[in-house]
Amino acid sequence: MTIKVGVVGAAGRVGTAVVDGVKAADDLELVATVDKDDALQTLVDNGAEVIVDFTTPSAVMGTLDFCVNHGIHCVVGTTGFDDERYDQVRAWCEANPSVGVLVAPNFAISAVLTMAFAKQAAPFFDSAEVIEYHHPTKLDSPSGTALKTAQGIAEARREAGMGEMPDATEQSVEGSRGADVDGVKVHAVRMTGMVAHEDVIFGTQDQSLTIRQDSYGRTSFVPGVLTGVRGVAERPGLTIGLDSYLGL
Amino acid sequence: MTIKVGVVGAAGRVGTAVVDGVKAADDLELVATVDKDDALQTLVDNGAEVIVDFTTPSAVMGTLDFCVNHGIHCVVGTTGFDDERYDQVRAWCEANPSVGVLVAPNFAISAVLTMAFAKQAAPFFDSAEVIEYHHPTKLDSPSGTALKTAQGIAEARREAGMGEMPDATEQSVEGSRGADVDGVKVHAVRMTGMVAHEDVIFGTQDQSLTIRQDSYGRTSFVPGVLTGVRGVAERPGLTIGLDSYLGL
Amino acid sequence: MTIKVGVVGAAGRVGTAVVDGVKAADDLELVATVDKDDALQTLVDNGAEVIVDFTTPSAVMGTLDFCVNHGIHCVVGTTGFDDERYDQVRAWCEANPSVGVLVAPNFAISAVLTMAFAKQAAPFFDSAEVIEYHHPTKLDSPSGTALKTAQGIAEARREAGMGEMPDATEQSVEGSRGADVDGVKVHAVRMTGMVAHEDVIFGTQDQSLTIRQDSYGRTSFVPGVLTGVRGVAERPGLTIGLDSYLGL
Amino acid sequence: MTIKVGVVGAAGRVGTAVVDGVKAADDLELVATVDKDDALQTLVDNGAEVIVDFTTPSAVMGTLDFCVNHGIHCVVGTTGFDDERYDQVRAWCEANPSVGVLVAPNFAISAVLTMAFAKQAAPFFDSAEVIEYHHPTKLDSPSGTALKTAQGIAEARREAGMGEMPDATEQSVEGSRGADVDGVKVHAVRMTGMVAHEDVIFGTQDQSLTIRQDSYGRTSFVPGVLTGVRGVAERPGLTIGLDSYLGL
Repeated sequence: MTIKVGVVGAAGRVGTAVVDGVKAADDLELVATVDKDDALQTLVDNGAEVIVDFTTPSAVMGTLDFCVNHGIHCVVGTTGFDDERYDQVRAWCEANPSVGVLVAPNFAISAVLTMAFAKQAAPFFDSAEVIEYHHPTKLDSPSGTALKTAQGIAEARREAGMGEMPDATEQSVEGSRGADVDGVKVHAVRMTGMVAHEDVIFGTQDQSLTIRQDSYGRTSFVPGVLTGVRGVAERPGLTIGLDSYLGL
Repeated sequence: MTIKVGVVGAAGRVGTAVVDGVKAADDLELVATVDKDDALQTLVDNGAEVIVDFTTPSAVMGTLDFCVNHGIHCVVGTTGFDDERYDQVRAWCEANPSVGVLVAPNFAISAVLTMAFAKQAAPFFDSAEVIEYHHPTKLDSPSGTALKTAQGIAEARREAGMGEMPDATEQSVEGSRGADVDGVKVHAVRMTGMVAHEDVIFGTQDQSLTIRQDSYGRTSFVPGVLTGVRGVAERPGLTIGLDSYLGL
Repeated sequence: MTIKVGVVGAAGRVGTAVVDGVKAADDLELVATVDKDDALQTLVDNGAEVIVDFTTPSAVMGTLDFCVNHGIHCVVGTTGFDDERYDQVRAWCEANPSVGVLVAPNFAISAVLTMAFAKQAAPFFDSAEVIEYHHPTKLDSPSGTALKTAQGIAEARREAGMGEMPDATEQSVEGSRGADVDGVKVHAVRMTGMVAHEDVIFGTQDQSLTIRQDSYGRTSFVPGVLTGVRGVAERPGLTIGLDSYLGL
Repeated sequence: MTIKVGVVGAAGRVGTAVVDGVKAADDLELVATVDKDDALQTLVDNGAEVIVDFTTPSAVMGTLDFCVNHGIHCVVGTTGFDDERYDQVRAWCEANPSVGVLVAPNFAISAVLTMAFAKQAAPFFDSAEVIEYHHPTKLDSPSGTALKTAQGIAEARREAGMGEMPDATEQSVEGSRGADVDGVKVHAVRMTGMVAHEDVIFGTQDQSLTIRQDSYGRTSFVPGVLTGVRGVAERPGLTIGLDSYLGL
């Protein structure tokens, strides 16, 4: 039994990769694609059970209203959600209690797992630092993912009652010890040829643990979207973030 | 408030490292050490609240009998436990319901976390392989930890209903693709200078996740033992394995 | 002063990347492109000083004959060269002693350097192993580059009078220790998402040295081709392989 | 035929490791050890062909004077050499033209090779950065080796006429992009459990090259010293630095 999938925003860069991913999966069937000027009714007419939406903040709420009220589950990567929007989605879901909606800011499974594992490991290691590597056309340093990883580590250490990390540095060339993000050092490397990579390193007596995430291309969100499509019918109501889908 | 700790088998290689670790920890106090010819009563006389036992299969059950029945919590790395022994320990604990006993085959936190994270990640990646690196005087290949890691991955894949990993290899120099452990390829490197290291690598569309564990010396079990000492009073009864102490 | 470049085979996958690379380089100027049905005379008419040829074994010799005899330097990645062909190219060069021809089987600078550094390091380390990582659609295992790297290490060890590497393995799961290539162990990993990567690892007392090469995409030959274009005029006669251009 | 070796400063930490190294090598024979209060004549009496000296700036010149004038080759790791001292050693060597003296600031082969390979690779990559990792009790940041590596890269880029590395960073958390060492970014990680490790990373179109050096313990200088002992008789006169012994 395959799951019948509709893709909204199918002509965009992300939508195109989602369409390819759905087509390549044996257990999924692409039954409808919708773009800017297409009627949402085509999703119903073609029997879509789940839709994937990577569109725009101005379009997504109309699509969710329509789909939830027509009993179609939704996997959403579109940005621009705030508490007000989440409350609205929850209200629609309450009126349609069998429908599931997943809204996630990040569908890259390896990145989501890296952040989760980092939080889990943090309380058991004296030291923790983050190094991220990106192509040199990136404008911000460090990356948002590295910042979030460091903040997660810092929070886990605080909750465990841990103090500052050991660091006897007395003489330092400015910048060599990295950026201080809530007490966690973060280093950013910019390197022609690289895509997006992150090392989260933990150390304690006679050992270290490194969690490394590599992105080699621009479609690394696809497996996470398909994981969402496969699981959304079993998770009625609104879910924010992919974590629970990954057993985290 | 410090925890009063006794170390049984304090003169052994492992015991010596545990003694050093307890002494170095601000929240722990070493109140007694016991060796082959010493009376266990010294643990009671010095007010030990928790003991650490790295001794021999022939000695450990007597120590546990004594300690549990005197209300002393136990953290045990001694080998040789089987179901019969575990049942005996459970019986002693039932008679002393406030006492906790932790028996763990592996106290290296980074190795325990690596195996747990590997199982957790396995269902979400098409490919998974294990590479372990050891000094060239090691007799077995691959290491026990690598075997166990691969078996954990294989089990997690089976439970998730995953099939074989993709591998189009047609022409192969014998051995190049590694050992097949329940369908997971395992590679063993032997390298002068190295100690004990492991890469667990997962891959899916446009991304990979690598969990790397490095042991740099022979006392990497100490932080895990101290984690056990700090948590054993809050976990009455018998616990097997450090996992639950690490929030796994 | 820019170098005027012509690209032969400009419409092919490789040729297209070379064209883009030449266009993007400040010190190079693309003056002519030639494809199957185009006359070579266009190279002369447009003043090409250097041509790049990634075409077919059946086409390349005619192009070289024409270019060398018209005083145009040649950078060639086309396959199919044997001693007879090299002798023919040398004869043309002797008749035109100011012209340089570079024929190289591999223009990926990081791979060429990795092999060269591996040979250089080999005599000073007790242990050496090679691990290569590729996408799972690759048909051969290990990769040709990994084989060549291992053979280079083996040769350097022989020349230095070194014996077998230390390896005490007694109990082994078949394949775990990798393929034996002239006494050097080679391991091949197949991983969805990966492109082409290689670790060459050396170990001696209390230390290891790892040379890691990562290819993230299909145009990694371009910088090597441009290095050839910039240097070919200073190296009259036939040069085989990029090594001398890299100061090796 | 074994080489007869004397160790001066044999009781020190370094000397002890050298003694162990010489004893373990099949082609070397330990014939004499000398410490503070021992007469150098014992080296002559026992037929030492080569001595190893890891002592103090105040002791080393007397030892070199004695040895060179008695026809004994010298491998020296003692610090404190300046131009005046080097000139003095050269003068002794001129009077004894068959004698070789090697004075090296760094005998860790993997570190010496890393620095040499980094210089060699630098002209062929758009980007280069250095990351070093040490135990958290280290006082300086970055390490001297990392500084020297970065300076070598910067010099090689200057000689090749290369400009600044690409870096589009506009928004940066202070320190995240590392220390600027002659235009090369250097990052320092401090991590409990680690010893001394360095990554030198180079990137260009669709590829990267990483040279990684790991020190796992305190005797990583021994193989370099033994390489010196084996080669010093063939290199009469004064040699500074291990590079030429490594074919660099």
